[in-house]
Formats: sequence, C-alpha cells, structure tokens
Amino acid sequence: MDAPETDSAERGVTADEVERLRRALDEAQGRHLRLRADFDNLRRRLASEQEAARQEARRVALGPLLDVLDALERALKAGSTDRDFYEGVAATHRLFINALREAGAEPMETVGRPFDPNVHEAVTTQPAGSPEQDHKVGQVLQAGYRLGETLLRPARVIVLTWQGV
Amino acid sequence: MDAPETDSAERGVTADEVERLRRALDEAQGRHLRLRADFDNLRRRLASEQEAARQEARRVALGPLLDVLDALERALKAGSTDRDFYEGVAATHRLFINALREAGAEPMETVGRPFDPNVHEAVTTQPAGSPEQDHKVGQVLQAGYRLGETLLRPARVIVLTWQGV
Repeated sequence: MDAPETDSAERGVTADEVERLRRALDEAQGRHLRLRADFDNLRRRLASEQEAARQEARRVALGPLLDVLDALERALKAGSTDRDFYEGVAATHRLFINALREAGAEPMETVGRPFDPNVHEAVTTQPAGSPEQDHKVGQVLQAGYRLGETLLRPARVIVLTWQGV
Repeated sequence: MDAPETDSAERGVTADEVERLRRALDEAQGRHLRLRADFDNLRRRLASEQEAARQEARRVALGPLLDVLDALERALKAGSTDRDFYEGVAATHRLFINALREAGAEPMETVGRPFDPNVHEAVTTQPAGSPEQDHKVGQVLQAGYRLGETLLRPARVIVLTWQGV
C-alpha cells in the first residue's frame, strides 16, 4: 500500500488523493472513538461482574452448609440425656450461626411477616385466629437465609388464612 | 479544524498537505492498534480476575466454618453416654465434610508426609522411631484444608525428628 502512494506523491498530488486520505483519517478516528467507548464499558463491567462472581461463589459455597445446620438443629431439637455432650453441641451450633454471619449469610426474620413468595415457600396453610393474621407467616419449618441483599434460601413456612368466625 | 483544511483544498493541494495527512493517518492507525491490544489484554484479565475473585470469596466464606467443624470434632471426640444423640451428631459431621467438599474444600492427607512449611504448621516435635521418619509428620492436631489448588488452612502438626539410637 505504501509504494503506490509514494509514486503518486512523486507524480504530484491531486485533490482526489487528499480527499481519500481525509476520509481514511476520519474513519480511523471514528473507529478509535468506538473502540475507546467499548474499552470504557468493558472496564466498568469488570468491576460489577467481579462483585457478581464473588456473590455467586459465596452462594454456591454456603448453600450446602445450610443443610448441615438444619441437621444439627434437628439433632438439638430431639434433646439428649447427656447434658455435657448436648451443651458442647449447642455451643457448636452458636459458632455455626456466627461463622455463617461472618461469611455474609443471615437468617431472615419470618414469623408474623406478611407472606412474600419472593422469600417464602408456602408448605401449607393454617386457619388464622384473627383477620389481621390473614396471609401472614404462622410458623417456619425451615429458616430462610439472605446473603447481603440477595436470597440465599427461601424460608419454608406455614401461611395463616382467615376464613371468618 | 475542518475549516482551514477545506480552505487549503480550495487553494490547491500541496505535497506537504498530503504528507501531513499521511502522518496523521499513520498515527491514528498506530493509536488504534495499541488500544486494540489493551482491549484484548483487559478481556483476558476479566476471565482470570473473575476466577481469582471467586476463589477468594470461597476462601473467606469457608475459613470460619472450619473452626465450627473443629468444635464439632472436639465434641465427638469427647464421646457421649447418649448413643442416639451421638449418632445424630456424627451424621451431621459427615454431612459437614461432604458440604465442604461440594464447596471445593478438601482435607489434606498429612500423617506420614514429609514436613512441608507451605502446608504444615509445626506445633512441636517428637522423637522419630527410625531415620526414615525424620522430618515427617507424626501427628495432626488440626486438619489442613485445600481449596482446589490453593491452601485454605495449613495443618497443625507434630514433626518427627531422628536423633539416632
């Protein structure tokens, strides 16, 4: 490409040649501006996608551990005749809750709240004792957890329904 | 900038003007190539930094849960007079190990391995029974864990040292 241009310069420049170069320069500058914009977008995405990757990794790591916590809570609920051993396990349970909190996972307040299908999974319903309790959470069968602002696991609940007196 | 160029085109083009345009075009193309290279580098970084962010998030989430596992293991080691309750807790412990494995965290094989300061923390030493055992791990006081290829927690160990007979 260089050789013919040098030739034409030697033959004497034409207005066409200048026009061609100007157009090429305009195009090159336009292309550069578009790439610059893509570059800035990519850099912005870098930050937000990293946060999403972090959140997802936490979610995947902590999800199965909630089942372990459930199992520990079921064992504790059954009670024991061995007080010392029971106390040791109960202390472990408190450590567990704290470790989850440290990792960003927190149990959700649920009982008495209005039923919300975004964070509650209705297992069954029970008659409400008053109209005010209608569509509120009566009992939690499995605790729900959130991870920062997002849902880690919905709470499995019994929903109250008011059917009049 | 456009106005003077139009003027000079109307005045008739010069070899200088063509030279100027060619240099500008060369520069624009060079600038574009450099930005293109930066763009590709950034895109590659995106992938590797996301993986690093994921790994770090897992590490931060799972670290405190290893202490919970230790507490559960200490409780189990003490034993219990309540066989049913003990069995329930032992089952929870197995679930715990599996959940950690699912999250990518695995206990390291340690006993009998040559002492390696990268993954072992020597708490104390004990006399080795034979020269072959010199500088090998004799006992694990706290299990070490790895997360994929990286260290999640070093094993706290007792190192054997051979002092001759």
